[in-house]
Amino acid sequence: MTGRVVVAGLGPGAEALVTPEVRAALAAATDVIGYIPYVARVADRPGLVKHASDNRVELDRARHALELAGQGRRVVVVSSGDPGVFAMASALFEAVEAGPPAWCDLRIEVLPGITAMLAAAARAGAPLGHDFCAINLSDNLKPWALIEKRLRLAVEADFAMALYNPRSKARPEGFVRALDLLREACNDARPVIFARAVSTPEESLRVVPLPECRPEMADMRTVVLVGSSRTRVIARTGAPYVFTPRSA
Amino acid sequence: MTGRVVVAGLGPGAEALVTPEVRAALAAATDVIGYIPYVARVADRPGLVKHASDNRVELDRARHALELAGQGRRVVVVSSGDPGVFAMASALFEAVEAGPPAWCDLRIEVLPGITAMLAAAARAGAPLGHDFCAINLSDNLKPWALIEKRLRLAVEADFAMALYNPRSKARPEGFVRALDLLREACNDARPVIFARAVSTPEESLRVVPLPECRPEMADMRTVVLVGSSRTRVIARTGAPYVFTPRSA
Repeated sequence: MTGRVVVAGLGPGAEALVTPEVRAALAAATDVIGYIPYVARVADRPGLVKHASDNRVELDRARHALELAGQGRRVVVVSSGDPGVFAMASALFEAVEAGPPAWCDLRIEVLPGITAMLAAAARAGAPLGHDFCAINLSDNLKPWALIEKRLRLAVEADFAMALYNPRSKARPEGFVRALDLLREACNDARPVIFARAVSTPEESLRVVPLPECRPEMADMRTVVLVGSSRTRVIARTGAPYVFTPRSA
Repeated sequence: MTGRVVVAGLGPGAEALVTPEVRAALAAATDVIGYIPYVARVADRPGLVKHASDNRVELDRARHALELAGQGRRVVVVSSGDPGVFAMASALFEAVEAGPPAWCDLRIEVLPGITAMLAAAARAGAPLGHDFCAINLSDNLKPWALIEKRLRLAVEADFAMALYNPRSKARPEGFVRALDLLREACNDARPVIFARAVSTPEESLRVVPLPECRPEMADMRTVVLVGSSRTRVIARTGAPYVFTPRSA
C-alpha cells in the first residue's frame, strides 16, 4: 500500500455541494483528519479512523497527515469550502517544505470544493460577476496594516470583495475598523451581503447598503461580500437580486 | 407547472467535479440552454430540449431562458466553472433588470460550481492560499486601461492573481501587454502557472518563473495564476508544488 494525502474540500455545508471526486476520496480513505466539525461531517465506517482536532493547529494537523501517509495510510485532510482558499492546503505545503525530504515524494493531491464566497454569491445573485478579490480579515497571521492596505487598494481597483473570517470573539475590533475604512473609501451606498452558513439549516442572507452595515451583522460563520461601485440591486418580492454587470 | 430558471455551474470539465445539486437540476429540466460545448456535456433524454448557441450571445441566451421560464418551462442555463465568475449569472440578471417586470417574479436560482482558478490552484498545490484577486483579461466589455490599472493595483496589494480569458485569436496583443506590465511591476521571478483545460483529457499544467513567461503559453482554455511575492515552489521529482503561505 502506498501512502498518500488528499486535501479535500467539503464545500459550505450541504451534502449536495460535495463533489463526487471528494466523495470517492473519502470512501477510499483509511484516515480522516481535520477540524472537529468538518470531521464530524464524514460518516463512520469500519476501517476508517477519524482524527478530529481543534482550530488553529493547522500545522500540527498537516504534519500528522504526512506522518500517517509516510506509514502507508490513505489520509484525507478535510476542509470546509475549498481547501486552497484560506484553508488546509497551504498549511500542508508549509509542512512539506519544512519537513523531512521524503515528504516531498509522498503522493499529495488537492481536491477543490465550493468555497464560501461562491456559495454566498450564488444565493445573492451574481455579486462577483466582474473582477473581484478575496481577503482574509483575520490578523492572526498577518499585520492589520496589511489588511487595511489591501482593502484600500481593492476599493481603488473597484473590485467586488469577498471578506473571509470577518469577525471572531477574540478580535471583534478588526471588522469595526474594516467597515469604517470601506465606508470612507467607497463613500456610496453599494450593497453588502452578509451570508452566514450558506447551504446549512442555519443559513441567513442579508443585503445591506454599506452606510447601514454594523459589525454585529457578521460572525465567524459569515462571509461578507462587498459590491464594486457598479454592483446593482434588483428589488422584488422576497430577497433582492444583487449582481455586478459584466461591463465596466 | 411553475417556470423557473436555474443557472448551473458544470465545473471545469470532469464529471466528478459536477455537484449533485447541479446533477439534480439537470435531471429535472425541460430545457437546457448554453454555449455549444457546455450543452453538449448534458446527456440527451426524452423530454429534454437542448438549445445550444454560439459564444458572445450571453444576453440573447439569458432572455431566451427567461421567456421559456415565463411559459412555465424548467430551464437550466449551463455555464462551465462557476456561473457567477465571468460566466452566465451576471448576464441573466442584466436581462432581468432590463426586461419586463414579470421576469423579477420568476423563480431564479444560481447553483455554484468549481471555477477554473480553484481547479487549477488545486492541481498546482495552493497558490491562492493567501489573499488573491480574479481579473478577466478580455477587453470586450471593459477598457484595456482599466485592466492595466487593476493589474498594477493587484501587484501593489501583493495579491496572488487568477487571470481569466488571457488570450484569444481576436485579441492576441492584450496578454503580451499584461505580461510586460507584470514583469516590470513585480520585478522578480515569482512562479506563474499556466493551467489549461484542467480535469479534461486535454489538461496541461506548466509552472514558469515570471521573467520566462511567453504569451503563447496561454490560450482561451487557459487560466493563468500569478503568485504573490510570497508564493513558493517546492521542487521535486515530477511537477513542483506551488503554494502561497498563510502568513505575510
